[in-house]
Amino acid sequence: VSKTYLQQGSQSKISRNKLVSILLKEKKWPKEGWDDLTIEMLLNELALMDSNNFPSRCGVGEREGRIYSSMVSRRHFRLSHGVGRSGDLGEVQPKAAGSSILSVLTNSLLLDLCRTHVSRSVSDVFLCPTATGLSISLVLLTLAKEKPGAKYVIWPRIDQKSCFKCILTAGLQPLIIEPKLIGEELQTNTDEIERIIADYGTDKILCILATTSCFAPRACDTLEVIGRLCKSHNLFHVVNNAYGLQSGKCAYSISQAAHHGRVDIFVQSTDKNLMVPVGGAIIAGFNKTLVQKIRQNYPGRASSSQFLDVFITLLSMGSNEYTRLLKKRSENYKYLKNRFGALAEKFSEHIIQTPNNQISIGMTLSNIGSNLPESERPAVISKLGSMLFLRSVCGARVVPCDQTVKSIDGYDFQGWGSHCKEYPYPYITAAASIGMETKDVDLFVEKLEECLKKLSKQTEEPENPS
Amino acid sequence: VSKTYLQQGSQSKISRNKLVSILLKEKKWPKEGWDDLTIEMLLNELALMDSNNFPSRCGVGEREGRIYSSMVSRRHFRLSHGVGRSGDLGEVQPKAAGSSILSVLTNSLLLDLCRTHVSRSVSDVFLCPTATGLSISLVLLTLAKEKPGAKYVIWPRIDQKSCFKCILTAGLQPLIIEPKLIGEELQTNTDEIERIIADYGTDKILCILATTSCFAPRACDTLEVIGRLCKSHNLFHVVNNAYGLQSGKCAYSISQAAHHGRVDIFVQSTDKNLMVPVGGAIIAGFNKTLVQKIRQNYPGRASSSQFLDVFITLLSMGSNEYTRLLKKRSENYKYLKNRFGALAEKFSEHIIQTPNNQISIGMTLSNIGSNLPESERPAVISKLGSMLFLRSVCGARVVPCDQTVKSIDGYDFQGWGSHCKEYPYPYITAAASIGMETKDVDLFVEKLEECLKKLSKQTEEPENPS
Amino acid sequence: VSKTYLQQGSQSKISRNKLVSILLKEKKWPKEGWDDLTIEMLLNELALMDSNNFPSRCGVGEREGRIYSSMVSRRHFRLSHGVGRSGDLGEVQPKAAGSSILSVLTNSLLLDLCRTHVSRSVSDVFLCPTATGLSISLVLLTLAKEKPGAKYVIWPRIDQKSCFKCILTAGLQPLIIEPKLIGEELQTNTDEIERIIADYGTDKILCILATTSCFAPRACDTLEVIGRLCKSHNLFHVVNNAYGLQSGKCAYSISQAAHHGRVDIFVQSTDKNLMVPVGGAIIAGFNKTLVQKIRQNYPGRASSSQFLDVFITLLSMGSNEYTRLLKKRSENYKYLKNRFGALAEKFSEHIIQTPNNQISIGMTLSNIGSNLPESERPAVISKLGSMLFLRSVCGARVVPCDQTVKSIDGYDFQGWGSHCKEYPYPYITAAASIGMETKDVDLFVEKLEECLKKLSKQTEEPENPS
Amino acid sequence: VSKTYLQQGSQSKISRNKLVSILLKEKKWPKEGWDDLTIEMLLNELALMDSNNFPSRCGVGEREGRIYSSMVSRRHFRLSHGVGRSGDLGEVQPKAAGSSILSVLTNSLLLDLCRTHVSRSVSDVFLCPTATGLSISLVLLTLAKEKPGAKYVIWPRIDQKSCFKCILTAGLQPLIIEPKLIGEELQTNTDEIERIIADYGTDKILCILATTSCFAPRACDTLEVIGRLCKSHNLFHVVNNAYGLQSGKCAYSISQAAHHGRVDIFVQSTDKNLMVPVGGAIIAGFNKTLVQKIRQNYPGRASSSQFLDVFITLLSMGSNEYTRLLKKRSENYKYLKNRFGALAEKFSEHIIQTPNNQISIGMTLSNIGSNLPESERPAVISKLGSMLFLRSVCGARVVPCDQTVKSIDGYDFQGWGSHCKEYPYPYITAAASIGMETKDVDLFVEKLEECLKKLSKQTEEPENPS
Repeated sequence: VSKTYLQQGSQSKISRNKLVSILLKEKKWPKEGWDDLTIEMLLNELALMDSNNFPSRCGVGEREGRIYSSMVSRRHFRLSHGVGRSGDLGEVQPKAAGSSILSVLTNSLLLDLCRTHVSRSVSDVFLCPTATGLSISLVLLTLAKEKPGAKYVIWPRIDQKSCFKCILTAGLQPLIIEPKLIGEELQTNTDEIERIIADYGTDKILCILATTSCFAPRACDTLEVIGRLCKSHNLFHVVNNAYGLQSGKCAYSISQAAHHGRVDIFVQSTDKNLMVPVGGAIIAGFNKTLVQKIRQNYPGRASSSQFLDVFITLLSMGSNEYTRLLKKRSENYKYLKNRFGALAEKFSEHIIQTPNNQISIGMTLSNIGSNLPESERPAVISKLGSMLFLRSVCGARVVPCDQTVKSIDGYDFQGWGSHCKEYPYPYITAAASIGMETKDVDLFVEKLEECLKKLSKQTEEPENPS
Repeated sequence: VSKTYLQQGSQSKISRNKLVSILLKEKKWPKEGWDDLTIEMLLNELALMDSNNFPSRCGVGEREGRIYSSMVSRRHFRLSHGVGRSGDLGEVQPKAAGSSILSVLTNSLLLDLCRTHVSRSVSDVFLCPTATGLSISLVLLTLAKEKPGAKYVIWPRIDQKSCFKCILTAGLQPLIIEPKLIGEELQTNTDEIERIIADYGTDKILCILATTSCFAPRACDTLEVIGRLCKSHNLFHVVNNAYGLQSGKCAYSISQAAHHGRVDIFVQSTDKNLMVPVGGAIIAGFNKTLVQKIRQNYPGRASSSQFLDVFITLLSMGSNEYTRLLKKRSENYKYLKNRFGALAEKFSEHIIQTPNNQISIGMTLSNIGSNLPESERPAVISKLGSMLFLRSVCGARVVPCDQTVKSIDGYDFQGWGSHCKEYPYPYITAAASIGMETKDVDLFVEKLEECLKKLSKQTEEPENPS
Repeated sequence: VSKTYLQQGSQSKISRNKLVSILLKEKKWPKEGWDDLTIEMLLNELALMDSNNFPSRCGVGEREGRIYSSMVSRRHFRLSHGVGRSGDLGEVQPKAAGSSILSVLTNSLLLDLCRTHVSRSVSDVFLCPTATGLSISLVLLTLAKEKPGAKYVIWPRIDQKSCFKCILTAGLQPLIIEPKLIGEELQTNTDEIERIIADYGTDKILCILATTSCFAPRACDTLEVIGRLCKSHNLFHVVNNAYGLQSGKCAYSISQAAHHGRVDIFVQSTDKNLMVPVGGAIIAGFNKTLVQKIRQNYPGRASSSQFLDVFITLLSMGSNEYTRLLKKRSENYKYLKNRFGALAEKFSEHIIQTPNNQISIGMTLSNIGSNLPESERPAVISKLGSMLFLRSVCGARVVPCDQTVKSIDGYDFQGWGSHCKEYPYPYITAAASIGMETKDVDLFVEKLEECLKKLSKQTEEPENPS
Repeated sequence: VSKTYLQQGSQSKISRNKLVSILLKEKKWPKEGWDDLTIEMLLNELALMDSNNFPSRCGVGEREGRIYSSMVSRRHFRLSHGVGRSGDLGEVQPKAAGSSILSVLTNSLLLDLCRTHVSRSVSDVFLCPTATGLSISLVLLTLAKEKPGAKYVIWPRIDQKSCFKCILTAGLQPLIIEPKLIGEELQTNTDEIERIIADYGTDKILCILATTSCFAPRACDTLEVIGRLCKSHNLFHVVNNAYGLQSGKCAYSISQAAHHGRVDIFVQSTDKNLMVPVGGAIIAGFNKTLVQKIRQNYPGRASSSQFLDVFITLLSMGSNEYTRLLKKRSENYKYLKNRFGALAEKFSEHIIQTPNNQISIGMTLSNIGSNLPESERPAVISKLGSMLFLRSVCGARVVPCDQTVKSIDGYDFQGWGSHCKEYPYPYITAAASIGMETKDVDLFVEKLEECLKKLSKQTEEPENPS
């Protein structure tokens, strides 16, 4: 094969190696996405550095990264040692230099992401290979060790079960703050928080666990006020930013709260913000020592599968594409609001005004079953949910607001699902999240209209899946 | 294409579908392993049942299982919703029937495995998608909710950091039981345990956390005695069976302890026992309600990646092959002992007698640096470890037994690494674990001999990686 | 797992199975593309029907489809028996019902494609798993058996080597027809063809091998006239439609020639028209018996790899997307012509007028080195080619038109590369082919401008790859 | 990540890179097989060198290696340009340095293989990406151009259709040499060959096309005698060594014939000898110029798929493993002979003595239907074939020897299937080929016994697939 051709061919390899060396050196999220071939080559090189792939290796330990199935080995790109060591999830494994680099790089890219999209002041970040709920429990467990004797977690109510359960799993006790209704929006009752702090005393209170992203009509918590309270009372401030990384509004709230008050840790899901499978969370903070303590509190090794997913996705996407996706999401939000609004009008309903929730939108369902006795309405309204589900509409939530009480581990929640005891109307919500396409909106509105028409004809005969 | 040929071809499909339907119906570990094609087809069928793969789906929620990278999607066989729901890790997801079946089946196969290889009386089992350390923390957190006020965990010392850290992570306090030296073996000091129980009172003590599999010269804890103590004092008995599933000895101990006394939960690593990548643990128990409570205490969804690995591996292996692998491991243990012993003799050392540890074997290192001042010996002995590592020997542990003190989170351990304060000789350990091949033993002994020769010549000049 | 969820999940499976059963029944190219998951499931099902994948198979023949490497097995989706039997490439293999169905379906989809995009009258089509050159040789070899004693192939000159070699490979003798220059376009000299027929006698002449797609300034052959000549003289008419399937113009020529005259066989490349890797050709015809004879003349089995590529691609694409791609190609042709034209003007060159070539476009290079002695110009002009290549521009052809003679197997071609002995100007061509993107055009024009500027400065110093 | 760990990790990469550089330099088949990771990395590096994978490429040609489906792209490891150029299958493509290296290396490894396993004197070899039948046609077409006017191919009868058809496809005429029966074996009738040569004259005869590997009771042709005849009469000698590369006996025959007489070209299937999917042949010769001429006679590019399969397989296997597989095959041949023989005895049949066929073994079927009228016997005997097929036995051939006549393209063959006009008994054959496992033999004998028992009970009722 002639030299000129080889030379030309090598150019391509050189330019890819350059991408890799820039990544290793700068540890920044590349602007332009990489193609799969380049990503695979990097992963293969990392795999080679793990001892289970050494050509002449000889394993006499109890954990040698042996993989029985080649299908399993391939899906992990032959990485098998996981990440971290018993001392620290961020620690480097002697047996697995490649997996260790994967972990270090992934965390670096995530730090870059958080600094760009949340705040320049974010000081440390790591990928926790457990979903948001358990990740928050781990955060709380670490905080609890920092402030022994403090049992209570102040928690502005948000009706998603794992947001609540993560407190109980950590062995702590929630102090539930019901929201106040401002217009049609449910906002943080900061007066009540202040009262509770005074009541229980700052020594007994571990932290405030606030939430940004949530279903309408609840708003993003007023983080700035909460952050000021935490600062003045010396309480930890943990933010459940589950799917808020994708929303400029949520990110800005965190940034402002950190700047003017205090935010210790904010946690977000990798699947909801980065379009990877469920199973990881990004634990980020403005206090480097605290973030490290959480990492060190993680007992033992962890799966590298989530690191692979996030690493591949970030490289494949590039930061420019992420910015584009966020912009697209924001446009979809407006588009959804418009189309949803037009539909509402048709059925004499309206869009619930929630200026502080830029992801989820609610529409009243005041007229469904309005001619029925009050006791029969919730069942009819709920039916809308299953009708939509049978039409492959996922993620729409129908809330009948029937004030029934749900008990979770001994705590009672009246009106569960609506974030408050008594919301004035039943409603349905839909969200514009990252990766949504315009046709999802179109399809949703079309199918919702179909269902509403069917329901408004009071057809009570049982419907079967089509 | 002629009917006869098609008929013949369809036989093959029919016989595979039969395998699948038997699996779905009986939920038992198949005796014969499946080929990859059959496994892939089943996974593809499961994927089809998840809403993110519905042809006409329309997603308007915040978590729609969207995957950005096709590389990521493929490595998860297009499953993206994870497993579990906020209420219970074992709960079925409406959006993800396929992932839910994957989870249910995997747990069923693991139950079958535990009943066959540990005890018929095992009542429930689930795969916890976190490694052993964090899994034990989750167990302890659940127990703590069952017995409020009980802070202490009785812990027979085992010098692996995450075995200890998992107690602290859960916010509990360890009561460390130093072992007693019987012959050359370190055994559970059950008298001391009794004393401690009397001292602290059963109300304050949550559980005994015993360990089966460990590095020699520590023995598997005397579970039967501990189990009887737990029963009589009404304490929870948790067994860290990290890599003990592969050892008949460990399994029998658990079984006997449960039969004659009490074992609530035993936890084992998936990677060390089933040859999958790091990241999962099997939480099993003799008390169905308690196992369920742990599952319910898990806050939120979890990754299905570990389920995929275990499911694929179990199907690919078949139970007969697993039995064969266990037998092979047992043979390798004997082979390692013989060859190791012969080598020991050559260097005037001996194999440490540890009849109650059937996985790990120790050889004394009494003669290395024996002509040096006591203070210089540990460094020389430690050097053996790095010499081996540079020769691609992984998993051998060199313990200089220099009685230095290591502090973990405020707890001091004298002689860390040797499971006790003062073990009489320095030593090196090697383990025969599942998946090891005879050539690993040969290579290890050969390289160890090379290193010992080099060291015995007192060559103190620095060695570089070859 | 609850029945409702399973039911919902099964919907997805049912709708996919429906796609498959419609395909098997109607054997038409689906309008909408399938997703990869559905395609893989179908391929897996086909694989199951091949005897090498039978669970209880027992092979005692010399060809049992055994595959050594699992990497190789996977890349063929476990199909290993190839297609065809010794008697007929289209014959069904008893040992390989799945591979046979793959072959039958692929050919059916291609028939559908040719009927839609070339002519409703196309009577049979098959995928020949050899590239265009050898495929035409196979066609000619079959024709030669049909008309023993006829040695000659009338061949309107087209300067692509394999178009010529395929005649020699078949052991036949070409009668080369030089084109005539009409305006700036090189067109078929049909008068000369008539003269040659008269000269040699129809008994000695096997066929006319005409060409549609070619580099400008050659035009698509005037197939309709040639077809009429073939009909009246009873000669076979074979059309080399290499990359003409993607061009409405070429397709229409074939259709008209078949309608008003005669076309026996037309052959096109799969890689150039369907965007698969090199290695296959579509042999299509208006005479079912003849197509079958070619298929039967193929000695032995053949690779199924090309069938896999084409089958996957057609299913993944769907016919609607193909139509869209053809439209896009046509737009790119216009865009290329415009931008190329604007550039030509800048350098006082012009676009060569070739109304009968709708794929390739030529621009004169009259001014490069125009101040140099005639003998030095070709070298300077040729340099443009390598300058472009070093800038990663592929596929542009620079033709210096220096009238040197190239000899192929004893036949001399003056002015090789320009399709004629003496084209008036040197030129460069570029083509708009399927899959091209607008940015390819932009990049090409930009880089060409850069090169032309450099050359026009008469910089003769050697340039190295950047 | 610490330097020591990285250093250790890099060792692994360095040792793999070394494997690659040795391969590129020495172009020999490695003794030890490579693992998949190393092979994939090499393929990825080759892919990078092809222009379709250049990061900044701009394609304006008609063939740019664009791939529509990512599934297709991945299965070709992103190589899409095929191999060869219009001038020569072995030529290097400027656009595809990587594919070109793949092709050059594969041919080098095959040369090494043929020199080791056939003869040191083999001078050139190439992989022809068409199966054996068409490959032989291509050889014959090239020879025909070398000796114009020579129409005839002397062909010792072998009853496999494509062995015969390949002559007709090339437009040549066979002169069929019936074998002579020596003992029970069918051997080459060299006297008849001599007579035919004298009859037709050496000018009219192109070559002798002999065959090595075949079904018993035909023997490997007496190549040495044929080779001497070819040498003395100056005829080309082509050997169809279809699956003979795996047999020491066949290889030795070729080597001796080349040494003492003349062998120009020998052709063998890649699937049957190297365990890859159907679709390629190895064309090898003792005359470098002639091998090159065949390569140059190939018109146009060809698929690189077969190169990938062979390259991956050879690297994955290593030459030591190939030697082991050949040894295993030879043992299986003996084992099959023994078990088959024992079964024969049970049914009062016998193994046909064919000392010159070391692959295929025949057993008489003299007693099946022996009590029936002669005209009904063939149907009963044939039934054995379908009974076996329905029991998943592939590759066993049942030959009723009923002297019916089969016509192929105008040539009549009496007793088709038995290689001769009238073989004394009906029989069944089985072959021991590479990759066969002992359990195939066991299963075959068991199922054959079952069928023979069933048949011997004269159960004539129709049997359905089980």
